[in-house]
Amino acid sequence: MTSTATPVDNGVNTEFLLTAREALTAQPEGAQFTWRVTNTWLKGTHSRSSVRGFFGLGAEQAHRTEFQFDGDHPELFAAEDNGPTPVELLLVSLAGCLTAGVAAVAQNREIQLRSVSATLEGDMDIRGILGADPDVRNGFNRIKVTYSIDADASPEDIKALVAQSQKRSAVYDIVTNPTNVVVEVD
Amino acid sequence: MTSTATPVDNGVNTEFLLTAREALTAQPEGAQFTWRVTNTWLKGTHSRSSVRGFFGLGAEQAHRTEFQFDGDHPELFAAEDNGPTPVELLLVSLAGCLTAGVAAVAQNREIQLRSVSATLEGDMDIRGILGADPDVRNGFNRIKVTYSIDADASPEDIKALVAQSQKRSAVYDIVTNPTNVVVEVD
Repeated sequence: MTSTATPVDNGVNTEFLLTAREALTAQPEGAQFTWRVTNTWLKGTHSRSSVRGFFGLGAEQAHRTEFQFDGDHPELFAAEDNGPTPVELLLVSLAGCLTAGVAAVAQNREIQLRSVSATLEGDMDIRGILGADPDVRNGFNRIKVTYSIDADASPEDIKALVAQSQKRSAVYDIVTNPTNVVVEVD
Repeated sequence: MTSTATPVDNGVNTEFLLTAREALTAQPEGAQFTWRVTNTWLKGTHSRSSVRGFFGLGAEQAHRTEFQFDGDHPELFAAEDNGPTPVELLLVSLAGCLTAGVAAVAQNREIQLRSVSATLEGDMDIRGILGADPDVRNGFNRIKVTYSIDADASPEDIKALVAQSQKRSAVYDIVTNPTNVVVEVD
């Protein structure tokens, strides 16, 4: 641990986030966001998703650019492995959410981060998705996330940082709690 | 709808999947998979995830290549928008899973697909993640998935196809039901 006069800078604009919190508390309709993805089947288990526009702050918004993602199954499943499996992408989503939270909370608590990395493991019994045993669930039995963090803070403060990130994480909430999904055919 | 002697081909090897189901019913230890992702913080809310190795069929396995994904927050949140938000990536994950399922089930039911596309919308009140109101959840209030499918089948059979994909989907299960997530700091 070092003591320094340099202001803590993790690259997160927490002043903006605190202002947004106040503004959206006063005008909660601006806080209603809709995130959107389109997906197109290509062949077999290979499909492509695009992310560009979303709705928020009462208006249509857009990312700077369109982001595209291919998903597929691996060769092990007699597929072409043109992209990660959907369950791996879910781990990517969880990782990005928790790590962004670690950076934001660290900034708010004036903890300078030097490095943050995480390993995520999702255990799954694939007899579920294969329909081999109705008592086996389709999804993960459990997910284990292990962080390794180098920061100007005590081990206890680093643990508290990660715990607070979990508490505010959208994806952690979606994965650990039931979320209503409606599927329709046009 | 057309009647044709051409065998149905959606690019999914269902024979392999049915053989795998039998084999893993006999040897359930081979069905224990662990999917892995590593994530590294770059700056602010920007992090990068990598997907390569996984464990399954009793041995260490690997994708043909490493897949990398950047995640970030949009400029609207005073961030740099170097990638989709984690919640958008979760929608990508769900889309890829359901669409792969549609193709696999269609193959198994001998339904020729011509085109499959989906739009996913996730509604979220961002007062949750901002900590503005403890009664607002962090994650999606609900997800709506709308499929548009052109196939050699009746509208009823197409709806049944999508319903069966939901029933066997790993990500649909993870999102709609609680999944245990353990987060540790090394």
